[in-house]
Amino acid sequence: MLVTLSFDNPVFWTYAVAALIMLLKLLLQPWMTVARMMKIKGGFRNPEDAKKSPANPDPRPGQLEPNDYVERSRRMNLNDLESIPAFLAAGLLFVLAGPPLVLAQVLIWTYVAARAAHFVAYATAQLHDIRALFWSISSLALLSMVGYTIFRVLSL
Amino acid sequence: MLVTLSFDNPVFWTYAVAALIMLLKLLLQPWMTVARMMKIKGGFRNPEDAKKSPANPDPRPGQLEPNDYVERSRRMNLNDLESIPAFLAAGLLFVLAGPPLVLAQVLIWTYVAARAAHFVAYATAQLHDIRALFWSISSLALLSMVGYTIFRVLSL
Amino acid sequence: MLVTLSFDNPVFWTYAVAALIMLLKLLLQPWMTVARMMKIKGGFRNPEDAKKSPANPDPRPGQLEPNDYVERSRRMNLNDLESIPAFLAAGLLFVLAGPPLVLAQVLIWTYVAARAAHFVAYATAQLHDIRALFWSISSLALLSMVGYTIFRVLSL
Repeated sequence: MLVTLSFDNPVFWTYAVAALIMLLKLLLQPWMTVARMMKIKGGFRNPEDAKKSPANPDPRPGQLEPNDYVERSRRMNLNDLESIPAFLAAGLLFVLAGPPLVLAQVLIWTYVAARAAHFVAYATAQLHDIRALFWSISSLALLSMVGYTIFRVLSL
Repeated sequence: MLVTLSFDNPVFWTYAVAALIMLLKLLLQPWMTVARMMKIKGGFRNPEDAKKSPANPDPRPGQLEPNDYVERSRRMNLNDLESIPAFLAAGLLFVLAGPPLVLAQVLIWTYVAARAAHFVAYATAQLHDIRALFWSISSLALLSMVGYTIFRVLSL
Repeated sequence: MLVTLSFDNPVFWTYAVAALIMLLKLLLQPWMTVARMMKIKGGFRNPEDAKKSPANPDPRPGQLEPNDYVERSRRMNLNDLESIPAFLAAGLLFVLAGPPLVLAQVLIWTYVAARAAHFVAYATAQLHDIRALFWSISSLALLSMVGYTIFRVLSL
């Protein structure tokens, strides 16, 4: 069986739309970090960032100290790095395994919805258990895609 | 030459099996971090994680302080992030370059075996030089895949 | 429309060459960290790395303390992780959307050139605003690839 990576293939189309949404999330999170650093004029990580410059016209001591408002966005970014590249690769292999469309839709959209809920829970500092629940759902959706693909690859 | 991304293609099949194993590793490492945090009831990173909740029924001071048992798993995860997404992408391009099957098998399985040995050396805190040896082997296997692919792409 | 992932396809060829260059960058940055750790005999992260070994024949106190010469390379690596895997995945989906060759060349080489300039600015600790400019250009090139692909996927 040869699966085509064409947007005419509804399984690949579903993956592509979800992958593009997750890529936007991955690419925009650093801009949230930038916006937070600019807003509080601090939370910088590099010694040279505390020098006087057009973006930092009034340097002050402490600009290099960790600030939780900024660090939270960095932790969210690191969490994305642990999940989104894995989804992009696992999803592509999953598509190539030729799953039924409804299975692909359920697993892929469960992943996207759980990551969106995780983002809101993280950004608003909800209780750990709420964030952990959404993270777990997203991880189990990914593991299900990998598991299905392993089954298909080994049953050839 | 058109290489098909079909599991019937033995080079792609080899890559797919290795990629799925490495995806499982990438996805399960955060669960090891979770298990270690639950075991020692600490090593949390977010202020809200030290609040009372069903998963943290008896909050105590110090739960937010770094703990090496937990941080080790986080460092292993970060090390995975520096290597596994690169393998997933480099391996796919390498497959599309149409390498001989035996070359693909040697480089891909060397990578997987070296990462497995690196995991054991890291988890059990072996002497730096042992961990570094396995890390270097895995990195050289990846660089060989990239080098072969560059050669094929430029010699078209 | 079916786009073939063949090096005969000039859009895919452009992506592949750029992806291989960026993979080399991603894979060589940790070696820069290793070289810097070896040079200053410090900046290690794991407790066991301060033990006596062939690579560390004369252990001394402070080898586990953060050192900015080493940490800078680690920050550059983390910055790569936030950008290069996203490029590898976004670029592949962009190729599959069948963009005009000239658009692909402009966006892909803008990304590569901006990352190269960002690397130089980061390694030599240029003023924040210079590094931020190159980072922003690379991020906007990626977002443009994603934006174009979303447009094509949704207009089918």
